[in-house]
Amino acid sequence: MTAIYPVILCGGSGTRLWPLSRKSLPKPFLPLVSAETLFEQAVRRGAEDDRFAAPMVVAGAAHGDLIMAQLGDAPGARLVVEPAARNTAPAIALAAALLPEEAVMLVCPSDHHIADSAVFRAAAMAAAELARQDYLVAFGIAPERPETGYGYLERGEPLAGGFAIARFVEKPDLARAQEYLASGRFCWNGGIFAFRAGHLLDELAAHRPDMARLVKKAVDEGCEEGARFYPAAEPFAAIAGDSIDYAVMENTTRAAMVPASMGWSDIGNWAALSDALAGTADAQGNVGRGGPVDLNRCRGVLALTDGPRISAVGLEDVCIIVCGNEVLVTTRDGAQAVGKLPGAVNQ
Amino acid sequence: MTAIYPVILCGGSGTRLWPLSRKSLPKPFLPLVSAETLFEQAVRRGAEDDRFAAPMVVAGAAHGDLIMAQLGDAPGARLVVEPAARNTAPAIALAAALLPEEAVMLVCPSDHHIADSAVFRAAAMAAAELARQDYLVAFGIAPERPETGYGYLERGEPLAGGFAIARFVEKPDLARAQEYLASGRFCWNGGIFAFRAGHLLDELAAHRPDMARLVKKAVDEGCEEGARFYPAAEPFAAIAGDSIDYAVMENTTRAAMVPASMGWSDIGNWAALSDALAGTADAQGNVGRGGPVDLNRCRGVLALTDGPRISAVGLEDVCIIVCGNEVLVTTRDGAQAVGKLPGAVNQ
Repeated sequence: MTAIYPVILCGGSGTRLWPLSRKSLPKPFLPLVSAETLFEQAVRRGAEDDRFAAPMVVAGAAHGDLIMAQLGDAPGARLVVEPAARNTAPAIALAAALLPEEAVMLVCPSDHHIADSAVFRAAAMAAAELARQDYLVAFGIAPERPETGYGYLERGEPLAGGFAIARFVEKPDLARAQEYLASGRFCWNGGIFAFRAGHLLDELAAHRPDMARLVKKAVDEGCEEGARFYPAAEPFAAIAGDSIDYAVMENTTRAAMVPASMGWSDIGNWAALSDALAGTADAQGNVGRGGPVDLNRCRGVLALTDGPRISAVGLEDVCIIVCGNEVLVTTRDGAQAVGKLPGAVNQ
Repeated sequence: MTAIYPVILCGGSGTRLWPLSRKSLPKPFLPLVSAETLFEQAVRRGAEDDRFAAPMVVAGAAHGDLIMAQLGDAPGARLVVEPAARNTAPAIALAAALLPEEAVMLVCPSDHHIADSAVFRAAAMAAAELARQDYLVAFGIAPERPETGYGYLERGEPLAGGFAIARFVEKPDLARAQEYLASGRFCWNGGIFAFRAGHLLDELAAHRPDMARLVKKAVDEGCEEGARFYPAAEPFAAIAGDSIDYAVMENTTRAAMVPASMGWSDIGNWAALSDALAGTADAQGNVGRGGPVDLNRCRGVLALTDGPRISAVGLEDVCIIVCGNEVLVTTRDGAQAVGKLPGAVNQ
């Protein structure tokens, strides 16, 4: 059995966890849930297990040095430097084109939290097995609430270790999300995929021939410098960007999913981080980190500071973030709007 | 008719408006409600009207220079430097002993806000007239809510321009406070008084002879340096401190009150400051001051900063104070507990 090749995607603009996450230091590179950054956790998830090859990281040029530093001494790790941000399909295709045709790639976002690495790896094994049979495999995250911000996967006929995907649904309204949750047939699309590299490129050529051609050209004309690979900028920039879901997954007849209950979170806003830190909360559900925090008659408060003391009285389900010259105070419900604040937008 | 002598008391520990108010710069000396500090407003309240003499300020040594600076060029103003904090009765008696016997003194806290100076002055005239007839006169603030943190005055028989005081009640419970509010017979004791100086000293000698003797000794043995008068430290420090209410007002048979509806607030906590600033609020009742403030889907939020931007989402009736190395976030209800926070106590 050949190894699984982790492909770690570092995209995202770093606005939803503003002011901690900034354009210059976005979410993957922050130690949000533990002393490790989310990126370091993503790397270590495979590094602990010899069924996984060294990771290939796909990222923009701005964060190259940060990534090399956080990769540490991971032997054999490679960095593919995107000449421009063109969404996930071209990024994944770059990696596929640089891997052996028969390699099974495991595509993982760099900014998600997964509490249970063992479950993650078991699901990866099941997904890899399906990928070897030329399925395009998505991880199906067991839904915990009627979330309207995620894509959903509807389970179809059973396969060995997983299911066919009967249907993709993008961001449903609340009524439908509640229905999906109650039905037990739907999972969240966590953005984690397993593909055989050559098969992914074949499917891309079928459904997005221009994209496939331009990615191939960018790789053929690219250059390698040590651990870094630089695709050619001109063809890559000419690509019409698209997500892997729209470009391939929703068009293939070979979409499959493996269910995974692994304590997953995309840490998509401050409320999600608060949830991910619940295990470290006090008896009132409060979490204070980074400096002196005095919470009085508070419940469900997340208080993070890079120095100044935070004192709070009487708050419930509120996040307080003090970072640099910015102070953010938001309700859990308000957390979704943080990325649209003037401070987050005009960084 | 002789002038009214304003006596401005600067006491208080500056913990309830922490972290803006600090021991080194307590509430009276901060520009809380307008560009002027509360102390400057207290001085100007009399300075605008030639029926008032120059003010006499009674304060601790720590704030002497601050007071002289904020007095500006007020001609004839005097500062009595308390050798120790002994509550209001000794402070007021010091001033009385330094004024002519027949002078009518108008005792005012330095850290209250009064929106309508004209009503204040009219009430002062009525109070002074009663004081000349040897009444000890308290301002009766028309109550706006069933406040349990204040003392109450019950109206007795009518006098010219006011009423006798039938009863003093200290900090009632909520049920009684509601009863008082509904009855229409009770006013808040705002800590503003008019006395004839000689009469106040006579009453003090009758009810607190030791205090009266020690104050006289402290003044007799004191020394004057320019605009400052230093009572002798030893006799003053020997005084058993007490409030003017307990020492004199509740014991005299000559207690009177003049009602005053003058937009009074003791700015006793962040919620009270929020109320005092309501006139400057936006359509959602939000007030932002001191620096960049972005309030989104907020109602009744007070946001004060000495520099860092405050961004808030979804909050209702919350005060956010950013000052120096401290960030305070409190509900309106929680505001009463701020003075007990570790940050406020361990300054």
